[in-house]
Amino acid sequence: MTEPPHERLLDSIDRPQDLHRLSEEELQRVAQEVREHIIDTVGEIGGHFGANLGMCEVTVALHSLLDSPKDKILWDVGHQAYPHKILTGRRDELSTIRQYEGLAPFCAIHESEHDIMGAGHASTSIGYAVGIKEGMKIAGDIDAGKVVAVIGDGAMTGGVAFEAIHQAGGLGTPIVVVLNDNGMSIAPNVGALSRYFNRVRLNPKLWHAREGMEEKLTTLPGGIGAAFDRLGPQLKESIKSFWAPGLFWEELDWAYMGVIDGHDVRALRRALAAALAAGRPVVVHTATVKGKGFTPAEDGGLEGMEKWHAAKPKSIVNRAPTVTVPSPAAVAAAATAPPQYTQVFGDALVDEVRRDRRVVGITAAMNSGTGLNILQKAEPEHYFDVGIAEQQAVLFASGLALEGAKPVCAIYSTFLQRAYDQIVHDVCLQELDVVFAMDRAGLVGDDGPTHHGVFDISYLRPLPNIVLAAPRDEAQLKHLLRTALTTGGPFGLRYPRGEGVGVPLPGAGDVAAIPVGRGEVLHEGSRVALVGYGSGVGKSLEAAALLAEHDLDVTVVDARFAKPLDVELMTTLAADHELLVTVEEGVLTGGFGSGVWEALNDRGVAVPRMLRIGLPDRYVTHGKPALLHAEVGFTGREIARRVEAALFAGRGEVLSEA
Amino acid sequence: MTEPPHERLLDSIDRPQDLHRLSEEELQRVAQEVREHIIDTVGEIGGHFGANLGMCEVTVALHSLLDSPKDKILWDVGHQAYPHKILTGRRDELSTIRQYEGLAPFCAIHESEHDIMGAGHASTSIGYAVGIKEGMKIAGDIDAGKVVAVIGDGAMTGGVAFEAIHQAGGLGTPIVVVLNDNGMSIAPNVGALSRYFNRVRLNPKLWHAREGMEEKLTTLPGGIGAAFDRLGPQLKESIKSFWAPGLFWEELDWAYMGVIDGHDVRALRRALAAALAAGRPVVVHTATVKGKGFTPAEDGGLEGMEKWHAAKPKSIVNRAPTVTVPSPAAVAAAATAPPQYTQVFGDALVDEVRRDRRVVGITAAMNSGTGLNILQKAEPEHYFDVGIAEQQAVLFASGLALEGAKPVCAIYSTFLQRAYDQIVHDVCLQELDVVFAMDRAGLVGDDGPTHHGVFDISYLRPLPNIVLAAPRDEAQLKHLLRTALTTGGPFGLRYPRGEGVGVPLPGAGDVAAIPVGRGEVLHEGSRVALVGYGSGVGKSLEAAALLAEHDLDVTVVDARFAKPLDVELMTTLAADHELLVTVEEGVLTGGFGSGVWEALNDRGVAVPRMLRIGLPDRYVTHGKPALLHAEVGFTGREIARRVEAALFAGRGEVLSEA
Repeated sequence: MTEPPHERLLDSIDRPQDLHRLSEEELQRVAQEVREHIIDTVGEIGGHFGANLGMCEVTVALHSLLDSPKDKILWDVGHQAYPHKILTGRRDELSTIRQYEGLAPFCAIHESEHDIMGAGHASTSIGYAVGIKEGMKIAGDIDAGKVVAVIGDGAMTGGVAFEAIHQAGGLGTPIVVVLNDNGMSIAPNVGALSRYFNRVRLNPKLWHAREGMEEKLTTLPGGIGAAFDRLGPQLKESIKSFWAPGLFWEELDWAYMGVIDGHDVRALRRALAAALAAGRPVVVHTATVKGKGFTPAEDGGLEGMEKWHAAKPKSIVNRAPTVTVPSPAAVAAAATAPPQYTQVFGDALVDEVRRDRRVVGITAAMNSGTGLNILQKAEPEHYFDVGIAEQQAVLFASGLALEGAKPVCAIYSTFLQRAYDQIVHDVCLQELDVVFAMDRAGLVGDDGPTHHGVFDISYLRPLPNIVLAAPRDEAQLKHLLRTALTTGGPFGLRYPRGEGVGVPLPGAGDVAAIPVGRGEVLHEGSRVALVGYGSGVGKSLEAAALLAEHDLDVTVVDARFAKPLDVELMTTLAADHELLVTVEEGVLTGGFGSGVWEALNDRGVAVPRMLRIGLPDRYVTHGKPALLHAEVGFTGREIARRVEAALFAGRGEVLSEA
Repeated sequence: MTEPPHERLLDSIDRPQDLHRLSEEELQRVAQEVREHIIDTVGEIGGHFGANLGMCEVTVALHSLLDSPKDKILWDVGHQAYPHKILTGRRDELSTIRQYEGLAPFCAIHESEHDIMGAGHASTSIGYAVGIKEGMKIAGDIDAGKVVAVIGDGAMTGGVAFEAIHQAGGLGTPIVVVLNDNGMSIAPNVGALSRYFNRVRLNPKLWHAREGMEEKLTTLPGGIGAAFDRLGPQLKESIKSFWAPGLFWEELDWAYMGVIDGHDVRALRRALAAALAAGRPVVVHTATVKGKGFTPAEDGGLEGMEKWHAAKPKSIVNRAPTVTVPSPAAVAAAATAPPQYTQVFGDALVDEVRRDRRVVGITAAMNSGTGLNILQKAEPEHYFDVGIAEQQAVLFASGLALEGAKPVCAIYSTFLQRAYDQIVHDVCLQELDVVFAMDRAGLVGDDGPTHHGVFDISYLRPLPNIVLAAPRDEAQLKHLLRTALTTGGPFGLRYPRGEGVGVPLPGAGDVAAIPVGRGEVLHEGSRVALVGYGSGVGKSLEAAALLAEHDLDVTVVDARFAKPLDVELMTTLAADHELLVTVEEGVLTGGFGSGVWEALNDRGVAVPRMLRIGLPDRYVTHGKPALLHAEVGFTGREIARRVEAALFAGRGEVLSEA
């Protein structure tokens, strides 16, 4: 039930310093108002949800003690930073978040002086914090500002977070880490660290217990207390440690404080003030509830929390989930809508596991995002989640492959960047049978530049021994996954976010491997050949249809493979056409189009004029994919326009500027 | 003093199973014979040295208990695996190690069935081990073999090692990690983990102390013993932990055993046998001495150990360092030899720090390899070693840059692959002033395929906002370092291993920034333009000299920048020449040459015939750089031959096959 409207304290908070004059009771109230503001706004427009609801009190407590941006708060990943955005002058713009030209989905240094670092990939905040604090020292004033990194327990599994803890502990850099421990990343966490956090979190009285420990030890009955004094302070320290959950940190020369109730502003302020004054690396371990204050998330158990990691647009009205009885028309539309690539991949992988028991799927904490939740349910023994740890996902796959397994690393294109050295050194050099299933290849939309998967063609193409392929539709995805699992050696398979194109899907018995390095001519025309790769094929077909309206009957080819290329086919196309156009949803530098030229040139073939269509040499913003595709000219219409310009204009024109 | 020749037990060890019939006394003797074999062989031919001497007993103990290759030993990095190579049938070939067509410098799966995984980059062995063991489970026989990963304490700082520990602890995968703790990577270790290891290692009695602890606790005087019984087993566990150094591991659900004397075969066998039988993840912490048994290393302190990490050819005779009184001729030759690029870079960075106090240098455990030892001595406050942690090196630099510092990450080209996502997401997207100084760009020689720096042009060129440059000689290196530090934004600077070309070096006052994106015409000729990048310029000049002998006066250009390219200059070259030849020491796929074509094509310029010279689409073996350059055709002579073939043959010929 919503309370009657009242004067919001939040409406007077235009900058974080406005919190400094409030009492702790008022701060607690502001935190709740921030929470309600998020529920109302994000429930309407959609966006990251659960983690933000859990961080309202922590954010208020931090900004009430600090002087941002002189003091610096670094938000790991940034999808927990909505309260921070609200309290740093962006309250009324929250309703534009993730929209084209609206607020960025994560922190962005170009958006606000209070967003100290940009992010979107996990586990980086501590590393930045060490650099910023040591940078103040280099600049001559180590006290130029306090530095706090806020990181989730899920992000703690990323190796680079450990590297940063290790460096800070070694240097004694005076930074504070706030560990936002809600027991979840997007899905429930896995691995030893998560069990460790669970052991600790389950007893929230530990912190207080430890505080009084020294005193209590000396008053133990039976003469033990007096004996402790004789045994000296080291033994006391040791016994204290039994009640103290922070040994993992203390072994690495960090001071540990915890577990603090992450929804109690007063307790948070007390702990944070002590940590900020300590002059050494300190971690403040806070227990928060993902989805706090929103009953369906909070009371829905792990499933509820995972479901409400993000909220869909118009999913909440009056602080309650909208009743989801879809209209008959909506039901009919949903039944005929093409399936998501992610769904098709997840189903297909289950089929592959049932065909060949050596097949296994690996995710790095992206269980449902990659469709591997389907595999997990259907074949749990063939499913592995390594946590946020892409490097280990690939190394683990290498080990599996050495034992004859057929591992599929299902990792978004953008996150696979984390494992680049493992791909080069541990998979391709060793010629191991590892498949990289790269979902979210191309422009991903609302999540923006940190999440666009636009570099993978260029960074994988130079690696020896790897095969690279991309399906033009969801049926081809199934055939190419089979191809990947029946071809020896490393194999990279990229496919876009979102719905397929609506072709019929082959049944499990009709899936067949495609000959590696063989393209497919979809339409034979003349003068111009459009050669698409992956989602570029659909754009090529759209362009061809538009050109046909202008009486230009152009050839359309699905390259299917970027490596090895179908050189025979490309040679024929080059001989028979006056303009060769390549279309790919990736950066053009070193991309698929360059590969086509390289192959032709290396053969000594006379290369006709070439036009490369793809993504530009700049980071693309966030927004709906259709808007972004229009912005960068990755549309059938723009391709058609440029083909005509190239055919009918002189060579002096700029042809492939994206 | 060398003992008189005697029958070597080692000569009867042709396979690791031959150790099974020996007594522990004999095994101890074999270990010493392995050590002497290494001293004699590596002292003569050169190679990794100190870590291998420290691993003789551990290797003998492992192979005496295991049945390789059914049981699998994974050697992290592999430069500690010489004893393993000796005991697995390669004793008599050790004298060919690191030589062209000889034994590989690290473990190589194509060399021996006993080399379970390939390596060369640190911190990967535990990740492989988890995969291999879980792979046995997938294949239906989790007991198909024991799996042991041997990892140095230095490699433990790499984040991916932590990710693997975390996964194995979570799964309870029954693998054994042998922590080879010698307190060093190449240089002394840094950071909190190293201090932790030091605390533990300094008391080698800890292991025995802990064993007897439970008993001792109950016999404590003054009634404490009896009280302990009342307080229950948990408190006892806690007090034990004070003497037990393994809490870091135990928090992550690993069993810990240590510290074991790494030179006592009997003690090692006892501990390893227990660990192998445990059926859960166990770490066996062994203390070894880097350079054990070779007095100059062992008694030389940290400096001695670092000096003898590797031995130079002919540096040891009769198990003692050769007397190093060089001949007057050698002294004269050394005085006139060009300096190493590494040395020039190290000196230049000190100059830059003195010019601009915002400049700092960062290394990832490659202090002297990168030349940053010079900075460390000259300006210790401007020097940082993050340990083996390339991701953190780049994140740390990002944080420094946000505070206005001018960080230079000095990381070999091959190791920078580890930080690819940080370069994409934390440097280039944020447009931060971070310089990447990539030593060892190109073919590095003896260290082979894991260490060749051949992908960086291709993997960095697609990234927005970055400037990429390469010097043709050591003087240009100084100018380009200045350029990097006075240009805003990310900057990648690559230069080769080894000596410069012998040009005079500018004094600190004569160093000047080069306009970004401006190439330099070194010689104006006709018909053919050779466009070199970095070390490709020298090869171009050699080729031009040979072509001049055949009356072909070709143009030679130093591109200096791969991004942005000097498009004006390239356009002019394209217009004025019938053949454009690009020369780069990197893989051709997506490389510099492709960039030249992309730039011309995007401008709508008519591109003349192009010939791209560079490295092939395969991993290149180890051996002296001159041999490798000849193998792949990266020589002035081969360039000249191919230019002539292209000029005088039809277009049908294959032109740029490397």
